[in-house]
Amino acid sequence: MTQAGGVQKVVIIGSGPAGWTAAIYAARAQLEPTVYVGIPKQDPGPVLPGGQLMLTTDVENYPGFPKGVAGPEMMSLFQQQAEHFGTRVVGEDIVRCDFSKRPFELHVSNGEVVRTHSVIIATGAVANWLGLKNEMRLATLGGGVSACAVCDGALPIFRGQPLAVVGGGDTAMEEATYLTKFASTVYVIHRRDSLRASKVMQKRYLDRHNAKVLWNKGVEDVLGDEKITGVKLKDTVTGELSTLEVKGLFIAIGHTPATRFLKDSGVELDAGGYVALKHRNSYTNIEGVFAAGDVADSAYRQAVTAAGMGCQAALDAERWLAAQGID
Amino acid sequence: MTQAGGVQKVVIIGSGPAGWTAAIYAARAQLEPTVYVGIPKQDPGPVLPGGQLMLTTDVENYPGFPKGVAGPEMMSLFQQQAEHFGTRVVGEDIVRCDFSKRPFELHVSNGEVVRTHSVIIATGAVANWLGLKNEMRLATLGGGVSACAVCDGALPIFRGQPLAVVGGGDTAMEEATYLTKFASTVYVIHRRDSLRASKVMQKRYLDRHNAKVLWNKGVEDVLGDEKITGVKLKDTVTGELSTLEVKGLFIAIGHTPATRFLKDSGVELDAGGYVALKHRNSYTNIEGVFAAGDVADSAYRQAVTAAGMGCQAALDAERWLAAQGID
Repeated sequence: MTQAGGVQKVVIIGSGPAGWTAAIYAARAQLEPTVYVGIPKQDPGPVLPGGQLMLTTDVENYPGFPKGVAGPEMMSLFQQQAEHFGTRVVGEDIVRCDFSKRPFELHVSNGEVVRTHSVIIATGAVANWLGLKNEMRLATLGGGVSACAVCDGALPIFRGQPLAVVGGGDTAMEEATYLTKFASTVYVIHRRDSLRASKVMQKRYLDRHNAKVLWNKGVEDVLGDEKITGVKLKDTVTGELSTLEVKGLFIAIGHTPATRFLKDSGVELDAGGYVALKHRNSYTNIEGVFAAGDVADSAYRQAVTAAGMGCQAALDAERWLAAQGID
Repeated sequence: MTQAGGVQKVVIIGSGPAGWTAAIYAARAQLEPTVYVGIPKQDPGPVLPGGQLMLTTDVENYPGFPKGVAGPEMMSLFQQQAEHFGTRVVGEDIVRCDFSKRPFELHVSNGEVVRTHSVIIATGAVANWLGLKNEMRLATLGGGVSACAVCDGALPIFRGQPLAVVGGGDTAMEEATYLTKFASTVYVIHRRDSLRASKVMQKRYLDRHNAKVLWNKGVEDVLGDEKITGVKLKDTVTGELSTLEVKGLFIAIGHTPATRFLKDSGVELDAGGYVALKHRNSYTNIEGVFAAGDVADSAYRQAVTAAGMGCQAALDAERWLAAQGID
């Protein structure tokens, strides 16, 4: 291992909306931040440089873009803005954090060790997918497969169309209920004969006139070339195969926050594995360690909420560093 | 009083980043939101349609605009996006809220009464100003007078220049400390011979090599035509007049949240008059009443944090309405 340079004031881990916004604010505050953007195909799942928006074709709900903006273009704009103010960008990941020493020691994927007075964790969360080849292909191309109904459900391609949701928990019910506003029919596809979701969430969905549940069904494949045309289902009891024609497929089987690199770091996580934050700010349980974006947010997960949290983390870090006499 | 139309699902009060972002999300969720944008010169102070950004020439730190964007242009983009998804925009203010009835009753500045199942309060906060004619003129024109060092301090016009901060509290110290990074010299102008700020905040400022305090001085006038050239000071003890040459003036004498219309509404405010929120969401103490942006945030006050909170409020309102069977 090599020791890289001097001691940083703040290192930002992650390069989605939270990470870049933290960088914009930290750079403007003369903290000379370094962003570790990550490398593709890290655990867990595809942690992409640029975050989940790199999988999103049309972002219609990030305020400031009335005509919408492509996810990768939006992240490029964020990055340009962060670099414009002097952010240093490194195409590596942080694989382990030692917060027991001060300055902290961060272990980089290339073997280097970086020392820093403060850290902003903005590594995001990845949606869980079924793991089917055609599913990822059609999600990446904007082909009608999505892991976020709130993000994508209102897109014109889904209006008045049959749509399917995979999952059986509260989030699946919430996403399915949301989609009933746009769809001709919503099909919840569930592997078992009862839902894990709370009764109230189940009722809210099932009360809709266009809500259906397909029990004991697993998704075997996603059909369609450039746009989804349907899903191949397999009955989990009888083994019988069938085809369901849909124009949209929403995977709602949970998210996994990218916190594996925090193992044994002492950073407190909540029951879902998300970084636990203090009341209405970005402080974690360790002084000098802050978090922002989906890695610390299981409730909203939107580009603009992540960006807002990134700003908070940078301002919190700046104030905390000033209080330590470091800046 | 006339009763306007049927019962709304959600009414959004305020048209800054929080209000428009709430509208974008609420409209996409088919809640058909109405935004009351306010009317100029409401109490307290100048509550502008569009919010505090209407006073901001260059917004450099809202992510997505690497070349910066003018505040009014940015708010216009937000509004277009909200309207694109079906937001109704009304050029009136809400002057009183009756949250004791359900649906709620909102009293409009034109005498109408609007009934709604839920409300998002996004009326913002206004910086307190000294009340000098030339001060407001140079703030509006981007002439070097500002009420937000974090927003504006890093602008090129302030680099290496003498700057002044008016105030003596913790926020004034924080803003002054921040400005020492950019200024040749920072002058804190204070009416008394001791500061109200905490000792630690005073020390943090005074430890800077380029930090000065001008005791017992009040600002009599702001000098300059298109750009500030200095301030006229009056000694509060001797009455002596003097001129201080500065290229920037930052007013840091507090903020006033726009909550007067909530008097007797039952909505809980904190000690500073801001709407009190629950842990990490937008719920107020009254079910169905949500808040977002500077009206509920005395800590960050940034466009992107307000926008993030607006998104949270719309998602919270949407989920709450769905739980009531209203949508």
